[in-house]
Amino acid sequence: MTILDGNHISALIKAELKAEVEKRLSFGKKRPHLAAVLVGNDGASETYVGHKVKSCEQAGFSSTLIRLSTETTEFQLIEEVKKLNNNPDIDGIIVQLPLPKHISEDIIIETILPEKDVDGFHPINAGRLLIGQDGFVPATPAGIIELIERYNIETSGKHCVVIGRSNIVGKPISVLMSRKGYPGDATVTLCHSRSTNLSSITQQADILIVALGIPNFVTIEMVKQDAVVIDVGITRTATTTTKSGYKLTGDVNYAEVSKKCSFITPVPGGVGPMTIAMLMKNTLKACNTKD
Amino acid sequence: MTILDGNHISALIKAELKAEVEKRLSFGKKRPHLAAVLVGNDGASETYVGHKVKSCEQAGFSSTLIRLSTETTEFQLIEEVKKLNNNPDIDGIIVQLPLPKHISEDIIIETILPEKDVDGFHPINAGRLLIGQDGFVPATPAGIIELIERYNIETSGKHCVVIGRSNIVGKPISVLMSRKGYPGDATVTLCHSRSTNLSSITQQADILIVALGIPNFVTIEMVKQDAVVIDVGITRTATTTTKSGYKLTGDVNYAEVSKKCSFITPVPGGVGPMTIAMLMKNTLKACNTKD
Repeated sequence: MTILDGNHISALIKAELKAEVEKRLSFGKKRPHLAAVLVGNDGASETYVGHKVKSCEQAGFSSTLIRLSTETTEFQLIEEVKKLNNNPDIDGIIVQLPLPKHISEDIIIETILPEKDVDGFHPINAGRLLIGQDGFVPATPAGIIELIERYNIETSGKHCVVIGRSNIVGKPISVLMSRKGYPGDATVTLCHSRSTNLSSITQQADILIVALGIPNFVTIEMVKQDAVVIDVGITRTATTTTKSGYKLTGDVNYAEVSKKCSFITPVPGGVGPMTIAMLMKNTLKACNTKD
Repeated sequence: MTILDGNHISALIKAELKAEVEKRLSFGKKRPHLAAVLVGNDGASETYVGHKVKSCEQAGFSSTLIRLSTETTEFQLIEEVKKLNNNPDIDGIIVQLPLPKHISEDIIIETILPEKDVDGFHPINAGRLLIGQDGFVPATPAGIIELIERYNIETSGKHCVVIGRSNIVGKPISVLMSRKGYPGDATVTLCHSRSTNLSSITQQADILIVALGIPNFVTIEMVKQDAVVIDVGITRTATTTTKSGYKLTGDVNYAEVSKKCSFITPVPGGVGPMTIAMLMKNTLKACNTKD
């Protein structure tokens, strides 16, 4: 059994990105520049955005963090995004979700220029993904693809079962795994809360990707011998063993399932660390496209 | 066994559309207006476009057919599409595919205003489909959904197997069948040319949708007892029994499979006739949206 080590691979990618930035600079080109907009002061959002900004700095990217109060109107946020759209030094724009309830996330996402939409949430980027055109792929599914690629996991003709149909993970990863080429060419089954006989389907999976948000949902009986198991779940669960009083738990019962599979992502340290690396990769791509 | 009668249902839809147009006119509103652009003189394309224009007229829609020579440049075609974009009387625009090789289909499709893209081929409409927003759904998958709905076929929790991963049929129908609500909420498996053990997967299908383009590919052994079978294949095959010397053959061996399934679409007369009806429904929707 091999652990798909997201900490290791994401560190590798960040080092590669840093080298690419240095190469850009040596050619007199600009630094990639990510702008993050944070509305309100949700603790988890603060942490996520903080990590993104810090990772950018470590790799030599410029970053701008725009903090707006919870009282910001939709109109004001649109104006803020438009300023970033029009700023030629900004390559990528992310607006940290969730937004306060009085602001439409759809409207804000569609305000971001598609060529600066490094989260890949704009419908036109979702569409390019579906129809196989080049665009920005959301960071989490892109991170899963990257892990599969770096560990040379065979995907062609394999049966890939995805549990969860979210716009951010389940749907895009099912599209990516079934597209032509590598990693892809898999037969993909997309399961969700309305699926019946779930175990009988997951037992057929050569590659099982779980993005449900239910801790320890996938047990050993649900997994085929030597399957590749990718766990996207990250739920805070209470514990007495850490100082903070909580720990991060995946959707897969790791202790059990890791004994039966060929590859598995741990939680934390699997898919999670990949997402920021992929966001940065998208930002560098946005920057390169403008050269 | 029930035949999913596309001729009957499409006639029903066209009558409903005609009634809606009359209602619009009685309120002093404009007729829906579809513009079709045909480049070159491919025989099949001529026939398709001709059917579309004729169906529009029968339902009281306005239609405009723009014929351009094979020598039309990409730039000229872009200008033609832009004129239609800017013409407030035109509600829907279709450019008949395939285009001559010197013209990029992707560029032309993206030139069409998304709100007039009644073929649903613009990446932003593909994206809205993927992420569950309202937009234009391509006619063939929309026609399949309509057939399922009109025959009250249960889809929630059912296993739907789709064979074929085209942008026009396989990918969008797999998205539609797995989305929330009815028709949808199915567990969907997308198979294609790289899939292995195809029979073992199709045998699990409560609903089997075949869009491969290989005549009589699906045989009785591949189908589960009482499955719903939807055949999107239309291949011209040679025959001595018709005057024209050819007949239309589906991807499913109808003679065999029809004995085993609960519902089946014939070819011709199944999914085929639904597509024009759905194109018109999209055009009416585009028109209604502008009111």
